[in-house]
Amino acid sequence: MYKARGEKYWFIPDGYIPEKSSGELTSHESVCVLNTSSDEALLRFTIFFEDREPMEDILHVVPARRTRHIRTSSLMKDGAPIPIGVPYAIEVQSDIPIIVQYSRLDSTQAENTLMSTMAFAVK
Amino acid sequence: MYKARGEKYWFIPDGYIPEKSSGELTSHESVCVLNTSSDEALLRFTIFFEDREPMEDILHVVPARRTRHIRTSSLMKDGAPIPIGVPYAIEVQSDIPIIVQYSRLDSTQAENTLMSTMAFAVK
Amino acid sequence: MYKARGEKYWFIPDGYIPEKSSGELTSHESVCVLNTSSDEALLRFTIFFEDREPMEDILHVVPARRTRHIRTSSLMKDGAPIPIGVPYAIEVQSDIPIIVQYSRLDSTQAENTLMSTMAFAVK
Amino acid sequence: MYKARGEKYWFIPDGYIPEKSSGELTSHESVCVLNTSSDEALLRFTIFFEDREPMEDILHVVPARRTRHIRTSSLMKDGAPIPIGVPYAIEVQSDIPIIVQYSRLDSTQAENTLMSTMAFAVK
Repeated sequence: MYKARGEKYWFIPDGYIPEKSSGELTSHESVCVLNTSSDEALLRFTIFFEDREPMEDILHVVPARRTRHIRTSSLMKDGAPIPIGVPYAIEVQSDIPIIVQYSRLDSTQAENTLMSTMAFAVK
Repeated sequence: MYKARGEKYWFIPDGYIPEKSSGELTSHESVCVLNTSSDEALLRFTIFFEDREPMEDILHVVPARRTRHIRTSSLMKDGAPIPIGVPYAIEVQSDIPIIVQYSRLDSTQAENTLMSTMAFAVK
Repeated sequence: MYKARGEKYWFIPDGYIPEKSSGELTSHESVCVLNTSSDEALLRFTIFFEDREPMEDILHVVPARRTRHIRTSSLMKDGAPIPIGVPYAIEVQSDIPIIVQYSRLDSTQAENTLMSTMAFAVK
Repeated sequence: MYKARGEKYWFIPDGYIPEKSSGELTSHESVCVLNTSSDEALLRFTIFFEDREPMEDILHVVPARRTRHIRTSSLMKDGAPIPIGVPYAIEVQSDIPIIVQYSRLDSTQAENTLMSTMAFAVK
């Protein structure tokens, strides 16, 4: 049996899906999750906005001993995705400890640019 | 009632508002704040410099269950903004726990570049 | 005798070796390790994927009082490298405390872009 | 009296001074330090390499209630700077708690790129 490593609550205040892409690469964000354990992890996303109620209870499974690089544009609540070009923030809750990193590729202008940070873990 | 998550003291040593922009995007920094709780958060910014006294007691409110992506160019003390092209550092104090991330978009040269990091939390 | 600083378990969920390079610089990732102690550190990498079993027990030595910036493309298991263009995640275990930072240079398009973050430490 | 915030030991495994610059901006790294206290902070840098002995006891003062964005190219030991184009790592020790962030601007190719991360704090 492999142990679950990390924490159960993770936060990413700077969410933003760029409106434009150019060149070879598409602008996108990824919430990268690692589940080191022998059990699958059930994730529950909450998406917070500047001026409206949060989108709650978006579910996602990460299998045992696997990583998932989840594109934020794939997260749906009742068929509706996160709106593009709008500042938002992400909460990830998991039923077992996981590790979460956030990265964004922006190709609004001709050359792409990357940013990345570990999400903030709360015990 | 939703719980306040995170910490009350956050620090960002590398503040810098680029003097130039080019292309489609404007150079800027954002202090991205997430308030997960059912109460509003009252933020108090202190801006530190290399060679002069700090700007203190810049206030900002983040409503309950909301995020705010605060442009540093919008922070004012007695009508005066943070000077551009000058190295500085940021302290964010909040009356309830929050989570803080810092990002900079620099478009000094034709293509933009991004950097981001969680602010440093002190208990 | 110099003391070992840091932690023994480190995680990087967002691993990715870009398929393309252009311009002067080659796309690559580095796992940057600092061993502050008077003893050498024995590292054991595990590489996790989205849809297959992990690559385990890739060993690497960091000498006493040295840093190593390890290119992920140099990590081999039974002669096989980490595949390029595939999302993966990295676990680094060390027999003594070390400090680990992860950086990626992507030159898929004509101008290079950088991202970096401290790996996530688990006690 | 203002309180010293942060930690006394900070580490940055991925140090690298790019050999080239192009366009308007010069490639450089900054170790950005914030001293929130009413006392000055005395910093002691150690620079670690891949294949030679560390450079030790490089001293730097950060005044009370000030930030310093220290260019790594300005750090000298017996008149010798950190070599360029060589992987290295940084330890920052301070006599009082401080906060440390590391950023790199690389303009090897025509457009600049940025990366940034908080340094890793050890209690």
